[in-house]
Amino acid sequence: MCSGGGGGVSAAINILSAITFLLAFAFLRLQPINDRVYFPKWYLKGARESPSHGGAFVRKFVNLDMRSYLKVLSWMPAALKMPEDELISHAGLDSAVYLRIYLIGLKIFAPITVLAFIILVPVNWTNSSLESSKVQHSDIDKLSISNIPVGSKRFAAHLAMAYVFTFWTCYVLLREYEIVATMRLRFLASEKRRPDQFTVLVRNIPPDPDESIGELVEHFFLVNHPDHYLTHQVVYNANKLDKMVKEKKKMQNWLDYYQLKYERNSSQRPTTKTGFLGCFGSKVDAIEYYTSEIERIEKEETEERGKIMKDPKSVVPAAFVSFRSRWGAAVCAQTQQTSNPTVWLTEWAPEPRDVYWDNLSIPFVYLTVRRLIIAVAFFFLNFFYVIPIAFVQSLANIEGIEKAVPFLKPLIEIIPRTIGEAIPMKATFFITYIMVDGWAGVAGEILRLKPLIIFHLKNFFLVKTEKDREEAMDPGSIGFDSNEPQIQLYFLLGLVYAVVTPFLLPFILIFFGLAYVVYRHQIINVYNQEYESAAAFWPSVHGRIIVALIVSQLLLLGLLSTKGAGQSTPVLLVLPVVTFYFYKYCKNRYEPAFVEYPLQDAMRKDTLERAREPGFDLKGYLMNAYIHPVFKGDEDDEKFSISDEPEAEQVLVATKRQSRRNTPVPSKYNGSESPSLPEIVNDQRL
Amino acid sequence: MCSGGGGGVSAAINILSAITFLLAFAFLRLQPINDRVYFPKWYLKGARESPSHGGAFVRKFVNLDMRSYLKVLSWMPAALKMPEDELISHAGLDSAVYLRIYLIGLKIFAPITVLAFIILVPVNWTNSSLESSKVQHSDIDKLSISNIPVGSKRFAAHLAMAYVFTFWTCYVLLREYEIVATMRLRFLASEKRRPDQFTVLVRNIPPDPDESIGELVEHFFLVNHPDHYLTHQVVYNANKLDKMVKEKKKMQNWLDYYQLKYERNSSQRPTTKTGFLGCFGSKVDAIEYYTSEIERIEKEETEERGKIMKDPKSVVPAAFVSFRSRWGAAVCAQTQQTSNPTVWLTEWAPEPRDVYWDNLSIPFVYLTVRRLIIAVAFFFLNFFYVIPIAFVQSLANIEGIEKAVPFLKPLIEIIPRTIGEAIPMKATFFITYIMVDGWAGVAGEILRLKPLIIFHLKNFFLVKTEKDREEAMDPGSIGFDSNEPQIQLYFLLGLVYAVVTPFLLPFILIFFGLAYVVYRHQIINVYNQEYESAAAFWPSVHGRIIVALIVSQLLLLGLLSTKGAGQSTPVLLVLPVVTFYFYKYCKNRYEPAFVEYPLQDAMRKDTLERAREPGFDLKGYLMNAYIHPVFKGDEDDEKFSISDEPEAEQVLVATKRQSRRNTPVPSKYNGSESPSLPEIVNDQRL
Repeated sequence: MCSGGGGGVSAAINILSAITFLLAFAFLRLQPINDRVYFPKWYLKGARESPSHGGAFVRKFVNLDMRSYLKVLSWMPAALKMPEDELISHAGLDSAVYLRIYLIGLKIFAPITVLAFIILVPVNWTNSSLESSKVQHSDIDKLSISNIPVGSKRFAAHLAMAYVFTFWTCYVLLREYEIVATMRLRFLASEKRRPDQFTVLVRNIPPDPDESIGELVEHFFLVNHPDHYLTHQVVYNANKLDKMVKEKKKMQNWLDYYQLKYERNSSQRPTTKTGFLGCFGSKVDAIEYYTSEIERIEKEETEERGKIMKDPKSVVPAAFVSFRSRWGAAVCAQTQQTSNPTVWLTEWAPEPRDVYWDNLSIPFVYLTVRRLIIAVAFFFLNFFYVIPIAFVQSLANIEGIEKAVPFLKPLIEIIPRTIGEAIPMKATFFITYIMVDGWAGVAGEILRLKPLIIFHLKNFFLVKTEKDREEAMDPGSIGFDSNEPQIQLYFLLGLVYAVVTPFLLPFILIFFGLAYVVYRHQIINVYNQEYESAAAFWPSVHGRIIVALIVSQLLLLGLLSTKGAGQSTPVLLVLPVVTFYFYKYCKNRYEPAFVEYPLQDAMRKDTLERAREPGFDLKGYLMNAYIHPVFKGDEDDEKFSISDEPEAEQVLVATKRQSRRNTPVPSKYNGSESPSLPEIVNDQRL
Repeated sequence: MCSGGGGGVSAAINILSAITFLLAFAFLRLQPINDRVYFPKWYLKGARESPSHGGAFVRKFVNLDMRSYLKVLSWMPAALKMPEDELISHAGLDSAVYLRIYLIGLKIFAPITVLAFIILVPVNWTNSSLESSKVQHSDIDKLSISNIPVGSKRFAAHLAMAYVFTFWTCYVLLREYEIVATMRLRFLASEKRRPDQFTVLVRNIPPDPDESIGELVEHFFLVNHPDHYLTHQVVYNANKLDKMVKEKKKMQNWLDYYQLKYERNSSQRPTTKTGFLGCFGSKVDAIEYYTSEIERIEKEETEERGKIMKDPKSVVPAAFVSFRSRWGAAVCAQTQQTSNPTVWLTEWAPEPRDVYWDNLSIPFVYLTVRRLIIAVAFFFLNFFYVIPIAFVQSLANIEGIEKAVPFLKPLIEIIPRTIGEAIPMKATFFITYIMVDGWAGVAGEILRLKPLIIFHLKNFFLVKTEKDREEAMDPGSIGFDSNEPQIQLYFLLGLVYAVVTPFLLPFILIFFGLAYVVYRHQIINVYNQEYESAAAFWPSVHGRIIVALIVSQLLLLGLLSTKGAGQSTPVLLVLPVVTFYFYKYCKNRYEPAFVEYPLQDAMRKDTLERAREPGFDLKGYLMNAYIHPVFKGDEDDEKFSISDEPEAEQVLVATKRQSRRNTPVPSKYNGSESPSLPEIVNDQRL
């Protein structure tokens, strides 16, 4: 791996596989039979139809137009052509901003690469330190900092470049943060009316012996947000019911399957076994068995629905509270409600589709405990796993040194200075890694081999209707959770090796360029983003690049101290401090735009909307927005809605606590104190 | 200092001086002539008068009632008698909660002392490690951890005690946090109406080419808080005027002085020199000179007043904005106003007396820069000053060891194990320190020697009227800024040495007990708290005790590892982690009560007040609350008030930007965008 020849072979293999993937994609995407795999986004938007209108039968599956095969890379300019504004309206802001992460990589590393090759490569190359040493090395290492003798004055060039690279990276990050913040604010301002703009999720509603959760919520917000409260929706613990609905759906699928089987071969009624996985137990008629099972579950379901309705314990201490205006909701989401900061917690409600209903029924205390457990587990994972692995890894890589110096003891006394040569020499490993994981990986992404095979299998065996076909081709959302850490690794590698081994930079640059084009193509043609967070993830992307930058600065500091340039430590120590202050500045300046909803923006949107649609029935619009999906479209719907509108001008907050009227002792809970004020509220208003 | 004899002598001296101070106080406080020095608080409250009603002339100055001298310590039970509720109404919540810091010291250390003496002292004492070593030691050290041989199994007792002490300290801290939070909330709820409850300080108002700051503020809040905005007060940069007023006052004082001199000796007109400090320059008639100087300054002052009024540049980009209700102010203080988080910053306004006017005119950017400079300076102070000092200090204290081991080199190879003995042995130094700074210092505090002398000097030479006498006896506020760090040092010492050298604990305990009684006496009889923060300082007191606890845990960890008990490290590492989580928990649970103003509390107070005083003129009440003191009681007052009340129901937000009506380009600044909405607001309302 360390020798120049080995590196060349692996490079050739990887470049070849990347090119093969790209060629295969260029061929496969032209075949009409694959159209739904490579352009599902357009089908889902209704802008494309199966390309089989008329013509020969074979044309339905194979593209016979030979000229189209000549333009192997035609998809690349096509992917780049769509302007960003159109991209946002086509695929959402999240996707457009996601692409900017690759763009930021290009913006950071293109000038750094040029500068490093003009200045650092000649500085490193015009030495002969490695040739005279016994350490194994490749030709690449001659271009790296390893080739500079210990204590050389040439390290001044690396120091200067570390400053230049840091300032350039920070400048690009600042510019991008500003751009993305502006994009987000513009996007939010242009968004259509959505229930979550008017709604706040309230958690940890304290129990009250006299009132149900629903009554308590209504009283609390009528008293404390009298001019703004509109309606609310309590949250039912419907996890059991949800499980039943899912079970019924599964049974229905099996029933469909056996009915289809019986239709195809009506001579024999299909059978199944009632035990585990249909493999054990007594043999029964499959269609009859599943029909009876579905009936049983339906009965249980009706029972469970009734139980949820009647049992006050099935209401969890959380509620979605909606307000008359975005202003009212913004105020409620950003303020503390009571003097006890652990109850009546308010936060912006997520998009209705984005609510994870199962977790709403977890008591808040458990959530805190879970968070603590995860933090402790994370700490021990790092402490007992990552650190030893890194240590062993660093030992394993000095095997080349061990050959030259066979005795362990003198090696230990030499392990500070040789590390100064060994760390940069790991660059060859990472160059191979970039080619395998980065280049070939991205080329594989555009080929979509797995979805291609699965689509054709499903299409052949399962698809009955057009709806089935749409479900089979659904590409889902982009894998942000797994892609983003990968990109961060490349940022880390690029920043660490920019000063140490500039030869690695072009590989990083090609990765970012290729990935940008490929993912732009995929976002335009393939993925169908389900939720929209309006780029809420940007602060963490920004923060992680800064962490990578600080890690690179500290590594350079350690490296130079082992290379006899220890006097540079104070000069280099300035960099992480300045970078950290840059991070703090950016956090103060831009992060609020990603977290809070400013009152001015809320008021502006409210005012414009009221002027445009004066008579809009907001209450009707919000009524059923936050109902658990299992109750949606149900005949019981009306039971879950608040019966009549409390008129803002003539509110009379009713209370059930007649019995306490004469007792001076206040209620134990904060929440139950508030409804003792209604008489005064009422006097004031009437 | 290390030998038992030396320690005994210093202890005797310190105890003697403390007793002398207390006896002197017991004698001096009984003399009528000192009454105003030892009981000024009662004079200021109007509850006490000079005790010179009738009787012999000498009785006016000396107490001749011999029986009263017998009760030397009678002030102690008297100081403890006043119940806490009465103390709060007598001296404010800040003072009452300040006393609780001493009380917390007693609560933490009393059980710890008992436990340490029952368990740790016998464990340490029944060894003979120090007797066989060559290190110099005192008898006290035999009771400390130094006396336990390296690698002994007895360290298990210290480990267990470290756990017990940590949990006890955390328990006391938690209980106290809860008590103080409750006290604060009750205090805030019972507070009378104050302008700062309705007012928010707005900073970083963005400049606008079309409107003045005042107009801009009014438009912004009328548009974005239409139902709640009441009035506002712009802030003038009156620093120059302020300086003139002070200069005039100084000149007036000199004039008074010379006029008094002339009255006493009318044969000769007093003279002064016009140069530096009245020592150089030409000789002039003093009374004429100061009269003309005052006239000159008065002229300049009038000019400056006119200039401030006319020049829009004298208005700084900050304003005090008042709301119709506490609810409205709480909302504005807790929310973000615009999408740019660096402009229109809102926070609770301080009490009018508590505003530091000079700093309001500092631009916000400068404040950030100043904060950065302070942070950097603090870092370097610690890095380049405290750490080397601590290092040298630790070297200086091993001089005892150096005598036994004269060669430096072997010493270094031994400087890990002996430190395990040397650190506990520093306890003798700290015991002396506690006696000097703690015991004698607190006894000196009650004696008030400096204020006593100064009062008598002033009374003899300067006091002319009763008002002068009141000014001369004014004791000011308690020195919280200098006392609190001192208390924190004792917490640190107590927690560090609780496990290491329990013998130090009784000294700490006596300090806390004595200081509690003394400061309770002082708060009841002497100090006159000027501001009231409603115990807003408690979170930092709590946080600092936790820091001391974590430092003590880390020191014990280091100490045990040098005493051959390195295998205990993982067991001890748990403590700082758990303590840190405890800190986080407390921060989440209680700190909001000290930072935010919950909407429920605001609404409750608003509602009650509206019911009690329906016709109260809030606007008139708030009108001049936040005017710079130099304008107060001025004939120009009306120029600084808003002319007429904007009626909430018929608001029409006027705008001057006629010229922009037809231009579609939005203004560059956020603030100036809002006033483009008034027509819509108006349409909605009418």
